[in-house]
Amino acid sequence: MMERLQQQVEFLLEIDKLKTIFRRTSLIYADRFENDAEHSWHLAMTAMVLAEYANAAIDLGKVIRMVLVHDLVEIDAGDTYCYDLEGARDKALREEKAADRIFGLLPREQSRELRQLWEEFELGETPEARFANAVDRFQPVLFNLRTHGRSWAENNISRKQVDGRVAPIALGSTVLWQYIARLLDEAVAKGFLKEGEK
Amino acid sequence: MMERLQQQVEFLLEIDKLKTIFRRTSLIYADRFENDAEHSWHLAMTAMVLAEYANAAIDLGKVIRMVLVHDLVEIDAGDTYCYDLEGARDKALREEKAADRIFGLLPREQSRELRQLWEEFELGETPEARFANAVDRFQPVLFNLRTHGRSWAENNISRKQVDGRVAPIALGSTVLWQYIARLLDEAVAKGFLKEGEK
Repeated sequence: MMERLQQQVEFLLEIDKLKTIFRRTSLIYADRFENDAEHSWHLAMTAMVLAEYANAAIDLGKVIRMVLVHDLVEIDAGDTYCYDLEGARDKALREEKAADRIFGLLPREQSRELRQLWEEFELGETPEARFANAVDRFQPVLFNLRTHGRSWAENNISRKQVDGRVAPIALGSTVLWQYIARLLDEAVAKGFLKEGEK
Repeated sequence: MMERLQQQVEFLLEIDKLKTIFRRTSLIYADRFENDAEHSWHLAMTAMVLAEYANAAIDLGKVIRMVLVHDLVEIDAGDTYCYDLEGARDKALREEKAADRIFGLLPREQSRELRQLWEEFELGETPEARFANAVDRFQPVLFNLRTHGRSWAENNISRKQVDGRVAPIALGSTVLWQYIARLLDEAVAKGFLKEGEK
C-alpha cells in the first residue's frame, strides 16, 4: 500500500509545477499574470457559485473535478493563448503527449479516471463538460472587463474574436452567455474593446 | 435574475484577492511562497487522489468544496502561520468577522451554504471535515520535506512542534499519518528538521 501511496504522492508533488505556468490574464488585485493552479481554483469556485445557471441538470462534483484537472497537461504543453492560431495547430498533439506522461504518474485505474475527466472536458459534449467549458470561457472575460480590457489591448484582440471565443458559453449556460454579451457591448461602448474586423 | 447573478459575480471577483495572500510554505519548482488560491487547488487535488485513505466513508464532493472555501476568510484575516501562538489568540475572532463580510457578499442561502462548509471544516468533527483537515496538514509537510525543511528552518520549527501539528491527520486518515510520521523520522535523521524541545 505504501508503494501505491508513494506513487500518488509523486504525482501530487509533480503537479506543483502548474503554479509556474502563466496565462495571459492579469489578476485584478496584483500586477501579474494568473497562473494555471489559481485559475483552476477560481473556475471550481465559479462552477460552485453559478451551477444554478447550467442549461441542463449537471453533476456539480464532476464539473468541479473536471476544472481542477483541465489544465494539468499545460505543465508540459504550456499555456496556448486562446487567440493564438499558430499555437493551436499542434496544441492537441502536445497535450496528448503531456497527458500520457502526467496522468501516467498515477496508479493505472486512477490515471484513467483523471484522464477521462480531461478528455470529457476537451470533447465538450456532456452537460458537465459544456458547463465546465462555459465557466472556463466566462471567467477570463470577467477579468478582462474588470481590468478595462487589459489583456485584449495587450494582445490586440477585437470584439469579433472575443465573440467567437465566448460563443460556446451558450451551450453550457444561456444565462451566462447573455450576461457576457451585454458586458461586451458595454466594453465596446466604453472603448475597452475595439469592434474591429481582424 | 440578473441582479442575483451580479451579486454572485461580485463575490467571484472579490475572491481574486485570495491569490495575493501568501503562506509560509515555499513552492517546489519556483523560489517564492505559495498563495492561498493555489494552495486550495492543491488540497482539492490531494483530497481527490488520496480519498481512498480516509478512515471513514466520505462524501468526496463535500471534502473538495470544503477545501476550496476553507481559506477565503484569510482575504481579510490574513494567513496566521500555524506555529504562531501570538497570532492564534485572536485568529477565531478575526476570521469570524471576515466570514461575515466575505460570505455575506453572496445571496443569503448561498452565503449560508458556503459559510457552513467553512464552519464544518473549522469544527473538524464530521468525517469530511476530518479528512479535509488531514489533507490540509499533510500537504505542507510534503512540501517541506521536498524543499529539505526550508520553511521549518526559516521559522526555527522543531520536530516536537511538527508532531503536534500533524497529530490530527490520524483522525482523518491513519495511513496518511503513518506515512508522514515515517518521513519526519527521515527528515530528522537527514538533518532537515531539528529534534528540539522548544
